[in-house]
Amino acid sequence: MTTTNVKAYGTGAPDAPLGQMTIERREVLENDIEIEILFCGVCHSDLHTARNDWGFTTYPTVPGHEIIGKVTRVGSGVAKLKVGDFAGVGCLVDSCRTCNSCKQDLEQYCLNGWIGTYNSVDKHLGGITYGGYSEKVVVDENYVLKVPANLDLAAVAPLLCAGITTWSPLRHWKVGKGSKVAVVGLGGLGHMAIKLAKGLGAEVTLFSRSPGKEKDALDLGADAVIISTDDAHMASVAGKFDLIIDTVPYVHDVNPYITTLGISGTLVLVGYLGGLDPVLNTVPLIMGRKAVAASLIGGIAETQEMLDFCGEHNIVSEIEIIKMQDINEAYERMLKSDVRYRFVIDMASLKNE
Amino acid sequence: MTTTNVKAYGTGAPDAPLGQMTIERREVLENDIEIEILFCGVCHSDLHTARNDWGFTTYPTVPGHEIIGKVTRVGSGVAKLKVGDFAGVGCLVDSCRTCNSCKQDLEQYCLNGWIGTYNSVDKHLGGITYGGYSEKVVVDENYVLKVPANLDLAAVAPLLCAGITTWSPLRHWKVGKGSKVAVVGLGGLGHMAIKLAKGLGAEVTLFSRSPGKEKDALDLGADAVIISTDDAHMASVAGKFDLIIDTVPYVHDVNPYITTLGISGTLVLVGYLGGLDPVLNTVPLIMGRKAVAASLIGGIAETQEMLDFCGEHNIVSEIEIIKMQDINEAYERMLKSDVRYRFVIDMASLKNE
Ligand SMILES: [Zn+2]
Ligand SMILES: [Zn+2]
Ligand SMILES: [Zn+2]
Ligand SMILES: [Zn+2]
Repeated sequence: MTTTNVKAYGTGAPDAPLGQMTIERREVLENDIEIEILFCGVCHSDLHTARNDWGFTTYPTVPGHEIIGKVTRVGSGVAKLKVGDFAGVGCLVDSCRTCNSCKQDLEQYCLNGWIGTYNSVDKHLGGITYGGYSEKVVVDENYVLKVPANLDLAAVAPLLCAGITTWSPLRHWKVGKGSKVAVVGLGGLGHMAIKLAKGLGAEVTLFSRSPGKEKDALDLGADAVIISTDDAHMASVAGKFDLIIDTVPYVHDVNPYITTLGISGTLVLVGYLGGLDPVLNTVPLIMGRKAVAASLIGGIAETQEMLDFCGEHNIVSEIEIIKMQDINEAYERMLKSDVRYRFVIDMASLKNE
Repeated sequence: MTTTNVKAYGTGAPDAPLGQMTIERREVLENDIEIEILFCGVCHSDLHTARNDWGFTTYPTVPGHEIIGKVTRVGSGVAKLKVGDFAGVGCLVDSCRTCNSCKQDLEQYCLNGWIGTYNSVDKHLGGITYGGYSEKVVVDENYVLKVPANLDLAAVAPLLCAGITTWSPLRHWKVGKGSKVAVVGLGGLGHMAIKLAKGLGAEVTLFSRSPGKEKDALDLGADAVIISTDDAHMASVAGKFDLIIDTVPYVHDVNPYITTLGISGTLVLVGYLGGLDPVLNTVPLIMGRKAVAASLIGGIAETQEMLDFCGEHNIVSEIEIIKMQDINEAYERMLKSDVRYRFVIDMASLKNE
């Protein structure tokens, strides 16, 4: 197969900084779209993959799955987009398309394993897939999103992961006007959960472990902030929420939040992978038919639905634009939660390097 | 208020056997129904309350909340039943009627605390409510159930607690034709879960920790039995179930069952009160948008719906009839799981004592 060499940023080892490298992109097949990448959001998964925090990184690795760009070529069978259109690519670039999950537009739960935008098996070129920290990407049109024309392109990028990760549970648990939603954690995911829940018409509360986030949360659209370490404050929202979106990525006690769920309410974890320690107590669950669930990104159709919704409601992420060359410093700042609320790489910086 | 003395069986201390005593029943008020108790099922909660296992028993206590009887008197405002009709009373005899839960027919989650059939505050007579181990009971008509005429009355009694406790989650999680349901534990609750899920049209699997329950489970209507301690057997149902009803009343590892849930599936605990130890792992949850929930009995309207359904589908509990005088021995047998599947007291034995 003919391939094209493109510039990218990646790393060859867990403890090496990211730097410039050259990767290959496949030729544009019948159903493929080639995208010149304009912006790429920086997700915590990028950092964890670069540093092999989860133990399954194949090196060299090129992160990035919040991709916004311009279509530069399309295969003969492509109808969705044409050259010159803007396009988005999120966390997944392929799936089996035949399993029960894929048939229900739940590609994120593909029973045969979906293909991640980076660090997954590349069935065209062999090796692994390379993500959005690069000049160009070639993706099957079924996994490419259309981008609303009215939104700031750089600020749309984080919608492809942080946005859909919070949108999917909001939709699955049928949040709308009159719903009472709470959000745990105010980072890339949390700030999108507030904006999207508010956009859907919900009353939105942020749980914060410490004071000082009130103004930021209200500016983002939250109706209230509850300090989760203040028992009296927590008691004031006992039994209140229909849905709690818990974006905290590390182990933490979910039991205090359960008490703030209303009858038949659900707490959905979107950030934490591991054991629920301290143990989950079933008594508050049984006394109100409550549930603890977890949810992973979202399907392609649902991602398009979210982007269209954001276009209609003028919702984008809050971002800080960086150059590709600043990525290692950005990772350090992310580890200190020193970002409001998402870094987005202006890929012109790589093109012109 | 005028009261009537009736014979009952109860105990005055956690370590004392149950024996005959006399209790008062209130006069029949405008909306009250007086019921001569014919049969009363024996629930594990009866035993736990008699022995103060949960630490909140007020003595003397008279257990029993699976009550079937005949109407002997009705208040002037009663329209639901007339003298001579059969009637049922389950776990609750009153609730606030005004909270959001009560207004939605979810009295079991009454935000102001529902009144249990026994060991709850008796707002008419003071003291606490006394349950079905007695000759008669007086209950507000709104908390009295109609009993289908075609069913064996003794075998209907356990539907009032064991039946509704499994029916409510089956309905809340929309089990019907084509649903795949699994049941953990084959006792009073588990055997009803199998019958009711099967009645609703589901494919039903029993999880059992050890071989030997196959024939019993299939006789009850189960389609298959999976030995939960056999890894290969468990792997054969990976990702299969829409709903798992876990009736196990003691601490146990739910993680192996989670792997058998399909996408968006739920494991609902109906028997266990306490911490989920070993800890619940969120990874299998997030990889399939799965949930762990818990559910408590059911509302009055839902209980009537279940009884009507059981009448139409000829579903009753499997029972062993005992005399009131045998209750202490029955408790000992229950502790050894030596019952198929529910003891029911023939209350004529008390009347004639
Ligand atoms: Zn991401
Ligand atoms: Zn698939
Ligand atoms: Zn019971
Ligand atoms: Zn109420």
